[in-house]
Amino acid sequence: MPLRTTEHTERTEQSAVTVLGLGPMGRSLAGAFLDAGLRTTVWNRTPGRDRELVARGAVSARSAEEAAASRLTVVCVVNYDAADTILRRAEVTDALKGSTVVNLTADTPDRARDAAAWAAEHGVRYLDGAIMTPVTTIGTPAAVFLHSGPEDLYREHQPVLQALGGTHTHLGDDIGRAAAYDIALLDVFWTAMAGYAHALAVARAEGISARELAPFAKGIGDILPPLFEELAEDMDDGTYSGEDNPLTSAASSMAHIVRTSEAHGIDAGVMRAAEGLARRAIGQGHGADGFMRIAELLGGRQ
Amino acid sequence: MPLRTTEHTERTEQSAVTVLGLGPMGRSLAGAFLDAGLRTTVWNRTPGRDRELVARGAVSARSAEEAAASRLTVVCVVNYDAADTILRRAEVTDALKGSTVVNLTADTPDRARDAAAWAAEHGVRYLDGAIMTPVTTIGTPAAVFLHSGPEDLYREHQPVLQALGGTHTHLGDDIGRAAAYDIALLDVFWTAMAGYAHALAVARAEGISARELAPFAKGIGDILPPLFEELAEDMDDGTYSGEDNPLTSAASSMAHIVRTSEAHGIDAGVMRAAEGLARRAIGQGHGADGFMRIAELLGGRQ
Ligand SMILES: NC(=O)c1ccc[n+]([C@@H]2O[C@H](COP(=O)([O-])OP(=O)(O)OC[C@H]3O[C@@H](n4cnc5c(N)ncnc54)[C@H](OP(=O)(O)O)[C@@H]3O)[C@@H](O)[C@H]2O)c1
Ligand SMILES: NC(=O)c1ccc[n+]([C@@H]2O[C@H](COP(=O)([O-])OP(=O)(O)OC[C@H]3O[C@@H](n4cnc5c(N)ncnc54)[C@H](OP(=O)(O)O)[C@@H]3O)[C@@H](O)[C@H]2O)c1
Repeated sequence: MPLRTTEHTERTEQSAVTVLGLGPMGRSLAGAFLDAGLRTTVWNRTPGRDRELVARGAVSARSAEEAAASRLTVVCVVNYDAADTILRRAEVTDALKGSTVVNLTADTPDRARDAAAWAAEHGVRYLDGAIMTPVTTIGTPAAVFLHSGPEDLYREHQPVLQALGGTHTHLGDDIGRAAAYDIALLDVFWTAMAGYAHALAVARAEGISARELAPFAKGIGDILPPLFEELAEDMDDGTYSGEDNPLTSAASSMAHIVRTSEAHGIDAGVMRAAEGLARRAIGQGHGADGFMRIAELLGGRQ
Repeated sequence: MPLRTTEHTERTEQSAVTVLGLGPMGRSLAGAFLDAGLRTTVWNRTPGRDRELVARGAVSARSAEEAAASRLTVVCVVNYDAADTILRRAEVTDALKGSTVVNLTADTPDRARDAAAWAAEHGVRYLDGAIMTPVTTIGTPAAVFLHSGPEDLYREHQPVLQALGGTHTHLGDDIGRAAAYDIALLDVFWTAMAGYAHALAVARAEGISARELAPFAKGIGDILPPLFEELAEDMDDGTYSGEDNPLTSAASSMAHIVRTSEAHGIDAGVMRAAEGLARRAIGQGHGADGFMRIAELLGGRQ
């Protein structure tokens, strides 16, 4: 059926952008492209995820290679194992030759660097990116995107990417940089989420509903953003001032949390690990320092 | 020197309020009372911490029993072991008889209940409280105080407590309730702080300074307060919707964080524990659910 194939190729060639991967985030991205009036081709491993998008005008490709005919292909799947499975199939790689891939899939900096090397070998132009806000922000001013890779390539595709709304920051030519920011920021996010889930479990065991706790939890959340900025200076300057809140006081609070949690039979592994870090810093003579001293202790090879 | 003692007792009897414990928070509380024009007596285990407060008009007591002669005594030390050491000495207990203690020391609900029982036995009127904001907020509208214990007793002392600024919420007669809220809220706070410290360590290992990361970390922080309120409904209603962000996706991100961290030789114990909870929930068949499912899994005896 060469006719049918040609027909499809022509259709997709007209698309300004392709989205590969239609999980919650991929669907959101494709929706924003459509809202911006861009001709958008979509594909997903499991068929049927594009129904609503097609109703809104998206072109449904029957295969990833058929979808990959646009000048710009945005990939957004669960991780790079999935992205590589899609992109590194010979037919898809061939179809991508000469065009640009913006990989908005989250993974590690190493994987981004590896993908860029693969892309360079196969004549695919490659940018890596990370999305720092929930699906509901896409297409709105609240969305936050980080990008890395060749600056000129980024500039070339910026107008189309801008259709996703929000702020876009190019972090530099090092292709791993967006993923590195992503990892650090997701570290903050998912650790905080784990803390909140645990707090709700402890509260429930104490007869406090989530709705009762929520306004105060929101209050704690409100404290964090300015504190994060302040503590960043502590960290860069190596001051770790504990004048207002020494590590010994933090460790004491952490012990109370562990005790209350375990008294209710609630696993306190996350807090135990955090308390362990505080205790180690205290054991090294830093008890009067501020909490960020534990970042110094975590250190790591540089 | 009976004369000197009498002199001192008279002086402290005129005080509207006493603050026992002059760590960063105790000093802040005493300072706010002084700013409100209240005659304030202060004492701390280690002498000399009251120098600045005395210069601002505070009465320095030479012992806790001498200090305990005010109608209202606010206690704010590192934990209840410390508070009990101070309050349960016979001379201090005698001096407190008939007056009110508001214990703003953080500890577990059990300890608050135990202290209330001790107070009832010894004719001391007792309220427990928790401070949910940093020292710098005390005396400002940003301060947040939680109180529990007999409502009439709380109402009686509310005018003096109001001098500490901010919002004061009476959570009910159950004396352990303020501590239970405190534990849950500190759980959110310290877990998030541990996440941030770890994120800064990983960022540094990736060549990203804390100041470079901070604006985006602030962005993550900004997402949390509204999310906390939304997720509280999920929790109370048992919906755990993962439509926009399933547990499988969260676990994938968590694994990336662990891998990147450990590749730099950075301990990832906190995230490993959090990822473990996510994996357990997935293993129980909840992979398509939202993250708060792990709170359900943590469960706890109720
Ligand atoms: N959701 C959010 O709020 C959010 C926010 C910021 C960033 N992100 C990032 O955006 C990316 C996508 O997230 P998401 O929310 O859309 O959901 P997700 O659950 O992380 O990913 C689902 C997508 O991955 C695809 N996929 C999984 N394994 C595959 C494989 N082996 N081969 C091909 N495709 C595979 C799925 O296809 P099937 O339908 O065939 O399974 C689906 O398209 C992730 O990296 C995530 O971290 C998400
Ligand atoms: N700092 C904050 O931002 C903040 C915010 C909210 C709540 N809180 C809570 O407020 C309380 C006080 O905190 P803090 O910041 O002032 O500092 P802290 O380091 O938690 O407590 C220091 C105070 O505890 C006293 N203390 C310790 N062990 C003692 C003992 N065995 N006997 C008698 N006194 C003892 C210290 O006296 P010495 O000077 O003699 O050692 C000092 O007065 C804590 O429960 C804390 O969780 C603090």
